[in-house]
Amino acid sequence: MGNKQPNKSNIKIAYIGGGSRGWAWALMKDLALAKNIFGQVALYDIDYEAAQHNEIIGNRIPEDHPQASLWEYKAEPTIEKALDGADFVVISILPGTFKEMESDVHAPEKYGIYQSVGDTTGPGGVIRALRTIPMFETIGKAIRDVCPNAWVINYTNPMTVCVRTLYRVFPGIKAFGCCHEVFSTQKLLCQVLEKIEGIQGLDRHDIETNVFGVNHFTWIDRATYGKKDILPLYREYIRRVRSGELEAHKDLGAQDLVFESNELVKMDLFMRTGVIAAAGDRHLAEFVPLNWYMKDPEQVASWGYGLTPVSWRWQNLQERMERSKRLLERQEAFDLTPSGEDGVEQIRAIMGIGDMISNVNLPNMGQIPNLPLGAVVETNALFTHDTVRPVMAGALPDSVYSLVAPVVAEQEMIVEAALSRDLELAFEAFMRDSHMPLAVKDARCLFNTMIENTKAYLPGYKL
Amino acid sequence: MGNKQPNKSNIKIAYIGGGSRGWAWALMKDLALAKNIFGQVALYDIDYEAAQHNEIIGNRIPEDHPQASLWEYKAEPTIEKALDGADFVVISILPGTFKEMESDVHAPEKYGIYQSVGDTTGPGGVIRALRTIPMFETIGKAIRDVCPNAWVINYTNPMTVCVRTLYRVFPGIKAFGCCHEVFSTQKLLCQVLEKIEGIQGLDRHDIETNVFGVNHFTWIDRATYGKKDILPLYREYIRRVRSGELEAHKDLGAQDLVFESNELVKMDLFMRTGVIAAAGDRHLAEFVPLNWYMKDPEQVASWGYGLTPVSWRWQNLQERMERSKRLLERQEAFDLTPSGEDGVEQIRAIMGIGDMISNVNLPNMGQIPNLPLGAVVETNALFTHDTVRPVMAGALPDSVYSLVAPVVAEQEMIVEAALSRDLELAFEAFMRDSHMPLAVKDARCLFNTMIENTKAYLPGYKL
Amino acid sequence: MGNKQPNKSNIKIAYIGGGSRGWAWALMKDLALAKNIFGQVALYDIDYEAAQHNEIIGNRIPEDHPQASLWEYKAEPTIEKALDGADFVVISILPGTFKEMESDVHAPEKYGIYQSVGDTTGPGGVIRALRTIPMFETIGKAIRDVCPNAWVINYTNPMTVCVRTLYRVFPGIKAFGCCHEVFSTQKLLCQVLEKIEGIQGLDRHDIETNVFGVNHFTWIDRATYGKKDILPLYREYIRRVRSGELEAHKDLGAQDLVFESNELVKMDLFMRTGVIAAAGDRHLAEFVPLNWYMKDPEQVASWGYGLTPVSWRWQNLQERMERSKRLLERQEAFDLTPSGEDGVEQIRAIMGIGDMISNVNLPNMGQIPNLPLGAVVETNALFTHDTVRPVMAGALPDSVYSLVAPVVAEQEMIVEAALSRDLELAFEAFMRDSHMPLAVKDARCLFNTMIENTKAYLPGYKL
Amino acid sequence: MGNKQPNKSNIKIAYIGGGSRGWAWALMKDLALAKNIFGQVALYDIDYEAAQHNEIIGNRIPEDHPQASLWEYKAEPTIEKALDGADFVVISILPGTFKEMESDVHAPEKYGIYQSVGDTTGPGGVIRALRTIPMFETIGKAIRDVCPNAWVINYTNPMTVCVRTLYRVFPGIKAFGCCHEVFSTQKLLCQVLEKIEGIQGLDRHDIETNVFGVNHFTWIDRATYGKKDILPLYREYIRRVRSGELEAHKDLGAQDLVFESNELVKMDLFMRTGVIAAAGDRHLAEFVPLNWYMKDPEQVASWGYGLTPVSWRWQNLQERMERSKRLLERQEAFDLTPSGEDGVEQIRAIMGIGDMISNVNLPNMGQIPNLPLGAVVETNALFTHDTVRPVMAGALPDSVYSLVAPVVAEQEMIVEAALSRDLELAFEAFMRDSHMPLAVKDARCLFNTMIENTKAYLPGYKL
Repeated sequence: MGNKQPNKSNIKIAYIGGGSRGWAWALMKDLALAKNIFGQVALYDIDYEAAQHNEIIGNRIPEDHPQASLWEYKAEPTIEKALDGADFVVISILPGTFKEMESDVHAPEKYGIYQSVGDTTGPGGVIRALRTIPMFETIGKAIRDVCPNAWVINYTNPMTVCVRTLYRVFPGIKAFGCCHEVFSTQKLLCQVLEKIEGIQGLDRHDIETNVFGVNHFTWIDRATYGKKDILPLYREYIRRVRSGELEAHKDLGAQDLVFESNELVKMDLFMRTGVIAAAGDRHLAEFVPLNWYMKDPEQVASWGYGLTPVSWRWQNLQERMERSKRLLERQEAFDLTPSGEDGVEQIRAIMGIGDMISNVNLPNMGQIPNLPLGAVVETNALFTHDTVRPVMAGALPDSVYSLVAPVVAEQEMIVEAALSRDLELAFEAFMRDSHMPLAVKDARCLFNTMIENTKAYLPGYKL
Repeated sequence: MGNKQPNKSNIKIAYIGGGSRGWAWALMKDLALAKNIFGQVALYDIDYEAAQHNEIIGNRIPEDHPQASLWEYKAEPTIEKALDGADFVVISILPGTFKEMESDVHAPEKYGIYQSVGDTTGPGGVIRALRTIPMFETIGKAIRDVCPNAWVINYTNPMTVCVRTLYRVFPGIKAFGCCHEVFSTQKLLCQVLEKIEGIQGLDRHDIETNVFGVNHFTWIDRATYGKKDILPLYREYIRRVRSGELEAHKDLGAQDLVFESNELVKMDLFMRTGVIAAAGDRHLAEFVPLNWYMKDPEQVASWGYGLTPVSWRWQNLQERMERSKRLLERQEAFDLTPSGEDGVEQIRAIMGIGDMISNVNLPNMGQIPNLPLGAVVETNALFTHDTVRPVMAGALPDSVYSLVAPVVAEQEMIVEAALSRDLELAFEAFMRDSHMPLAVKDARCLFNTMIENTKAYLPGYKL
Repeated sequence: MGNKQPNKSNIKIAYIGGGSRGWAWALMKDLALAKNIFGQVALYDIDYEAAQHNEIIGNRIPEDHPQASLWEYKAEPTIEKALDGADFVVISILPGTFKEMESDVHAPEKYGIYQSVGDTTGPGGVIRALRTIPMFETIGKAIRDVCPNAWVINYTNPMTVCVRTLYRVFPGIKAFGCCHEVFSTQKLLCQVLEKIEGIQGLDRHDIETNVFGVNHFTWIDRATYGKKDILPLYREYIRRVRSGELEAHKDLGAQDLVFESNELVKMDLFMRTGVIAAAGDRHLAEFVPLNWYMKDPEQVASWGYGLTPVSWRWQNLQERMERSKRLLERQEAFDLTPSGEDGVEQIRAIMGIGDMISNVNLPNMGQIPNLPLGAVVETNALFTHDTVRPVMAGALPDSVYSLVAPVVAEQEMIVEAALSRDLELAFEAFMRDSHMPLAVKDARCLFNTMIENTKAYLPGYKL
Repeated sequence: MGNKQPNKSNIKIAYIGGGSRGWAWALMKDLALAKNIFGQVALYDIDYEAAQHNEIIGNRIPEDHPQASLWEYKAEPTIEKALDGADFVVISILPGTFKEMESDVHAPEKYGIYQSVGDTTGPGGVIRALRTIPMFETIGKAIRDVCPNAWVINYTNPMTVCVRTLYRVFPGIKAFGCCHEVFSTQKLLCQVLEKIEGIQGLDRHDIETNVFGVNHFTWIDRATYGKKDILPLYREYIRRVRSGELEAHKDLGAQDLVFESNELVKMDLFMRTGVIAAAGDRHLAEFVPLNWYMKDPEQVASWGYGLTPVSWRWQNLQERMERSKRLLERQEAFDLTPSGEDGVEQIRAIMGIGDMISNVNLPNMGQIPNLPLGAVVETNALFTHDTVRPVMAGALPDSVYSLVAPVVAEQEMIVEAALSRDLELAFEAFMRDSHMPLAVKDARCLFNTMIENTKAYLPGYKL
């Protein structure tokens, strides 16, 4: 907040999953647009060729955008080379392929269990966690050995177990998890201010919110714009939407519903708890009891959101690969529009260039006093030089604690199960999921099938 | 533990629910058998005549048992008179009648929800709590005003919310809740020692156990007999029962199953968590996810326990009323066999006559570090003069915490809902119950019906 | 941090101690300079005439400064009138007169106990607390009854016990304590950056610091300017000062030493604990063991700071009264230079106009995990609309905890003693002070004398 | 508490310091008198010959006492041999010789600092800790490597830092510290009951007490005999002693005062805090501010206790060595009178033979909620098979917390200093001691001298 700006900083970022055709490009743009920082980005990916393509794409940015911050991209064949000398490590990987995700999301459907995302919680989230944790075990150990002082930013899902694994493997790590899920709720609140109070042109940064919970299952108990308390306005907004006075429903086609929603789940949870549920409906509905919003596809439809099939992801990947090709072959320009993510701003704050408050995933040191210490939780934190310090968020109210506490326990069980290669413990986590309505016998069959489908990514188990 | 015994103590006990035809007699017996204490017992009951009958029965004991400790029984017409000058208050009431309990237990069956007990948790437990809490609000305030220094022992279910209400209403109260549910598991462990190790004649007091959890959903993570660790023996016992080597199954007729069980749920939970579930199967199965053991009557039967119909309670009451008549008319003698409860021993310890360790329900001051402070939990405690002090029980392991934490939250919500007469909050607690598989709309219908059926006991609500 | 600014806000501030000839003028200036807020300031003072003078001075500001924010000042004869409708309450009073302070500071000298300030800790701080707490008891109750939703900012010393008393009397109060003591250390760190790194023109807002401790005994374990870690630079600075390479010593005359210091105590404490002591040397030396820096005037002189005699305060008051007269009679213009305090910025943030991070005194809810919950501690907090939320500061290191924990206990004892009018307990707090080297008998004589000297301000005691 | 007794147990005890001519004999007696346990005792001592002497003395017991429990004693030349296969490890060593203790206790006298014991706190306690901790580092590592499942009972002073070091070195250790200091206060309370209430023949086990604090600085906030609250009786007792009605003063000669006292310090602390100080006056006076009871020998004398000179210890050692000779040469019989220690009873309880409640030193897991977690504290604990579980003791009241919290911090600093061989940190602990009235320069001289005097026992330092 002072008036002096420190000098420009030359930094090295190691990007694990650097062959990505999505997040990597978003980061490239934000880095190019960032003031006062420049340097190198080492791209590491198990698909080395993909990383090489991004090296080419990244290194061409200055040609098209000569005034952008200067970053040199380099694909590296090993994680150790990528990490060597890194100031920051960004982790954004796909754990396994969409083939495994196909099983995660759709195998349970044979037992009548539908999933809207299937990457964080639910049967799919559990299995995905099991294959992700060993990867983060490897990454965490490499960071410990190669660049223990680097700051580590994770974008991979399931977020909580990824960050928790890093801290389990290397307790001294300086890692946090970063997710844009809360942002869309903040945008909804801007819309509320517009629709109810006629205040236009607001940006989510204009809104102050107190965030608490776990990733993708976050809550807001205070939200203000200036001296306006947004909670009663939100209540009025919901009343009008429900009464038909307001056409809040987006005109969503079937395709849109794959990712979008009418926010009906979110609004219902607010009316029932008094606290703003602050994630997408597709995520929220997966955490609360199955029967509330996801009993069957009809109930899902009646709540105005959709189930994202993995077929959509295959198709989307196809499009991104084609785009990668076009970018490589210079058939498409690489435009510099901000991604809307906070990551690069956080990097700048950690470099000492302006402080910021943003919601992140960190081990609980008391910022949410009624959740277990050490578990990874999401709250606001103050970012400043070489420090990310949680803001006291306060205790979850009982109506939310009752939903979040078992999620925390399930996640702790999964991490322990995966680190100790204990499939029985993993199964117990699976059985405790709020979206597991099966008797033990059937659940066991489903679990075995799903494990079988992902076994290529389960090193060290006796299967 | 010293060698000197303090003098005899003359005490006054106020018995709220003193017309009872069961617990009251048990207390009378234990008091008559207790050494070093004697005094008065004031019997208060909304059924004054029933209290008068117990006055007569109680005052006759010395005639038949001249060597028993001397207690004078007196029915009192008001709670204030009963409490006046009391050193101890015992609360054992039936909140409402079996007519309301009929609704608690059986109304949900129309929606396919079966309940084995229906007095602690599940839809029935929630509704029962709503009508019990206002009664405990009244009792707690009366204690605060009339005998604030008395020790208060509650036996009424739902235990946790009763004790919690007393502390909410009068934070300075010296109250605890007492339940024999853990004892039967301790007896099972004696049987394990007999069957596996050939050690015969053991009594539950010979076993040391570390108890933690909430009432009727308690757990034991250490159990020893002398230097023997019972957990591996229990594991072996279960192996043999499951393999048929041991005929552990009791020969239970349909009638027996109303209260008895084959302990299969208990054993399964141990195998799945590594911690001994320490309550009756009928209680345990009500707390864990519905689909584990209570999806439908067939699943219940396959797990070797029964659902207790309220018709059985009506019939049992009939028998107890007849017995009351026989006792009154001296057609039956009042025999002095110990009840097996710890209550009178606890009274003696609080009077300074010998200290003891026993499991009780008390506000959490850190004895279970990962449950919310202030919530009522069950652990061992040291009883000594004018003091009941929890023993550090330790944190619940994640596999148990995941099941217990939401129960604690649900109970906190019910107490808050009942004290603030907030039916919406009560409904949210109802929706969070692990045995509520309905979508909101159906759940609302069921809730409304059940509330309607118990409304005579819901003072102060806008219904 | 958003780009939209909310509208201007019309607020009412009640100023308790509004006749002050110092703090009141500072607030007037900052309010006049503040953007986006305007309104009324009610001035309440036991010296009603002084409040009336400030009313006149304040209301003349717009004449001289037509572009300043518009505030209407009004002296009120009762505290209730002043508080009526207040959005903010500012408390800045002198508890008693300099006559009592004369005793606080100088009476102990007869026993060889010297005090540099005598208003926060030490024998003088204890006695001053005893007469201040009843005043805050009255103020807290008035706020509870008249304007329970107002935000309360305290500037009065002893800060900690004042804020603690407000929360003891009215637990729902929204109060915090505000002190500029840390700022001078932040300025020293700017000087370090200039002297060691050649970075010029820095302002304390350019520095990031993590503050923890209790008021006037605060510590900083992290301090950064951009990506520079200031701690090693401070160590180097101290080395050069000590070796004579740097002329850090100010050229302080005897008069200057009344308030200024050469920072030698501060530097020594840093070298000995590894944590930056962040208050003026005169305060720091009063909290640590007597023999470290304040055994006698010679030791004080050798550490380059001074003892502030109350005679200086009398003289200074005289000057301020003369200035008041000149201002009233328009012989002197009221210039609008910012005071350097954070108070008005905090008011703006609480009104929703820009958020800020600043160090304040608040009850501990876990922001310093190894100090008692509920005790008032000083850490950074996030100020945003209607919210002041502590930033997790972390546990004090043992070398600092050993010094701060007994101070917290002493302050808790004083508040309890004063609220319960228990002079024996107050004496025990007095005996526990680190600057009480007397045996009990002598200490008792001194205590009695000091109590006698302040008894006009000890209502409700049996003296 | 049950009626069945488990079988006899054959156990191996490793005694570190097994050449002792005091504690070793006490243990031998108690073992010989213990029912249901028998086995081997390995004696390890750096003075191997002394251990061999005790081997001989111990193995002769059955000859004189054929009905005693049978124990085979064996001197072992290495700690590893002694620990091999041990079920229990008893540690009772003299860290260094009386030559070093001479310096600990008497070197500070040149600076006017007197010490009554000098082995726990004060300048002497700090230096003794510095040479003890490396020994416990060695012992803890040997236990970790050789017998990690053994239970470890420490009797060595300074108790707290010894136990803390064991847990720092081997966090999985099952260790506790055992001290009889509280017993004498319990005996005093028996005397109170006799003198005030005329109750004769009581034993300390007849009294119930809630103990909390740190070793040698323990407190009792509740004490009862049966239903009698002893605190008001103690207050009356003190009144009578002070008024001369009661001749509580023992007739102590100069020699007696070396160890005995008139309990005046203890009584004064009770009157001033409302909590019973539960250690000997010589220990209590060393922990509280210097000026309270130990300013100079005159003040010590006026409080009716004595300073124990090391010359007395030399003389006493001489006597014990002579007694050892007599025992060896069969000039004196080894009589079996119980030592009054709890150690063997605790061993039996841990073997599963009867449970017990006793005060011990254990890491804080919340039993004293306002002291730091992990620090070693003394409270009651429940001993049962393979388990020592603290009883919740509650938070220290502020008047005691203010005295105990800095002691905990000082002890934590010493352990850290010794483990990291950091003399500067050790000096800071030294400076924070309540019995360090010197300015830094003088304190440094004293510290250097004392370190020099003990340097033979400071391995790994750069001196």
